[in-house]
Amino acid sequence: MSDQPLDFEGASCPVPLRQFPNIVMGHGGGGKLSAELVEHLFLPAFDSEALRDLGDSAVVDVPAGRLAMSTDSFVVNPPFFPGGNIGELAVNGTVNDVACSGATPLFLSAGFIVEEGFGLDRLNAIAMSMADAAKRAGVQIVTGDTKVVDRGHGDGVYINTAGIGVIPTGVDVGPDRARPGDKVLLSGTIGDHGMAIMSVREGLEFEAAIESDTAALNHMVAAVLEAAPGVHAFRDPTRGGLAATLNEIAAASQVGVAYAEDKLPVARLVAAACEMLGMDPIYVANEGKLVAFVPADQADAALDAMRAQPEGGDAVIIGEVVDAHPGIVVATTGIGGTRVVDTQIGEQLPRIC
Amino acid sequence: MSDQPLDFEGASCPVPLRQFPNIVMGHGGGGKLSAELVEHLFLPAFDSEALRDLGDSAVVDVPAGRLAMSTDSFVVNPPFFPGGNIGELAVNGTVNDVACSGATPLFLSAGFIVEEGFGLDRLNAIAMSMADAAKRAGVQIVTGDTKVVDRGHGDGVYINTAGIGVIPTGVDVGPDRARPGDKVLLSGTIGDHGMAIMSVREGLEFEAAIESDTAALNHMVAAVLEAAPGVHAFRDPTRGGLAATLNEIAAASQVGVAYAEDKLPVARLVAAACEMLGMDPIYVANEGKLVAFVPADQADAALDAMRAQPEGGDAVIIGEVVDAHPGIVVATTGIGGTRVVDTQIGEQLPRIC
Repeated sequence: MSDQPLDFEGASCPVPLRQFPNIVMGHGGGGKLSAELVEHLFLPAFDSEALRDLGDSAVVDVPAGRLAMSTDSFVVNPPFFPGGNIGELAVNGTVNDVACSGATPLFLSAGFIVEEGFGLDRLNAIAMSMADAAKRAGVQIVTGDTKVVDRGHGDGVYINTAGIGVIPTGVDVGPDRARPGDKVLLSGTIGDHGMAIMSVREGLEFEAAIESDTAALNHMVAAVLEAAPGVHAFRDPTRGGLAATLNEIAAASQVGVAYAEDKLPVARLVAAACEMLGMDPIYVANEGKLVAFVPADQADAALDAMRAQPEGGDAVIIGEVVDAHPGIVVATTGIGGTRVVDTQIGEQLPRIC
Repeated sequence: MSDQPLDFEGASCPVPLRQFPNIVMGHGGGGKLSAELVEHLFLPAFDSEALRDLGDSAVVDVPAGRLAMSTDSFVVNPPFFPGGNIGELAVNGTVNDVACSGATPLFLSAGFIVEEGFGLDRLNAIAMSMADAAKRAGVQIVTGDTKVVDRGHGDGVYINTAGIGVIPTGVDVGPDRARPGDKVLLSGTIGDHGMAIMSVREGLEFEAAIESDTAALNHMVAAVLEAAPGVHAFRDPTRGGLAATLNEIAAASQVGVAYAEDKLPVARLVAAACEMLGMDPIYVANEGKLVAFVPADQADAALDAMRAQPEGGDAVIIGEVVDAHPGIVVATTGIGGTRVVDTQIGEQLPRIC
């Protein structure tokens, strides 16, 4: 996949999609070009029954009960990066948000905002990897929308996904449910996604590329829930990194969180890149890691379940929930001290997802 | 609401949201600034119970059965226009897509992509009018997301909404269900939204501003369904105008559609603006009009129900479904002739919604 968009030339001639190498304004106009984009690009990629009906909305069957609904927009720059692209990120990100409420993700919507001149080959590659990610996660992309913005008023492509899932009876997890005594589990190394993006942007070169960890976590969530039905909270530490996630749960549950800094798995190249750029991996985004707050008596079972998953081989218990310092996250450092780990004010890594 | 964004000045100082007049990159970073934007701007505006939980996804209760799901991104330029703004457009647009499957819209997600430097006062005005539109439609905004893109890589604000609704038992409408003999109903004047936008962009001046017709149609859909339970298809003619809608249904149902050109209600100023700009109102976007395909014996009841709604006073039967010319839409013109009304190839009015 070339990073250079193809040349864009005059676009007023009424020929079918296949003869435009790049997006033109008309692809977002609701006329024939829009229809052809859907028919020739999105439908073959996503191929779901509900989408094929081509109504303005999809009709799907769901069981009664509690539904989880989530949305995320993706503006990652660059859209193609080592280990993935904006498309699979958009699918996995929303699948993970839905899964972290304990729900089984079922259906996604996909909204594209494409800049005039964006290559159709690249859009196609993005759609194909969305379809692939959806298949792996076991969800269907059932409805979508494409808007085109004029050159200079976008940045290649932005993707919004929204997702719904069903929360099984008896499951009750949430960021406000962590309790003192809970063990804090982390499913693997931190900082991979953020440093994959930053390495590309900053032109860092190592003996191998740092790859994004983008992955769907719903199968892992289901496995952990089966092994440890008493789980209190799940979260995938994306923007703001693990620090933001731990702080959010500490604040929402009004409990303290304490973890051991030397327990945090960080890949060697990620650690090197962080050091070169002066970043702390605890603040760097992940896109395929799961944090679970689990009652102590089920923690080992939950850890085993995580480790049995393809993405969970490096899972580890990093700390626990404490009565002291409610709302505060504390790290015990290698040299025996402790420090407060706060959320960042703003943006360490802009446009990371 | 001024159209001039406020000046944007240095943004690295860790002060709360209230002291930033404009969006900075950190508002999309997942740190404290992001949290403050949610707490101080979106939460007070949207104030729904599910949103207040601040999980990555919302948990909502739905009855079992068929669910309609839809999404739309909004990139309208300018974001504030006579009769509305991008916020209420984003709520009404998705409410209408869900409603047109015969569903009762219940819950919306909202994803914002904001350009660095966008005024927080304007973002607040947009959020407030989204909240107001949601209240009028009787839906809740339950989950959201904000991303910030660097100056010059967006265009003020883009909004994606996704929506879900429940399809009542027995309701079965869809673009492929129109049948010969059906009457085609239109709930009011056409072209208002598109010409409101174009008049602003082109600097057209009349004795009064042309106002967008943006409105939620779910109450009208429910009223029509109650009066005429046999309705075959609903659609709101947005991008591509009434012509696109009639063609889509003709194609999906493999039927012909014939309408009388002189039956189409067009407001006087809209007609004047169309004439000045060389546009045909049949291709111009609407954002608060409903088209219904209704079996002949229920058409009058459906028409009365439309007219009884606040937005349906000008409702009219414009034509019917015919056996002849399947997939083709034909207009009978004022002088007794007929012409084929095709979908447009591309874009008559870019960035209209």
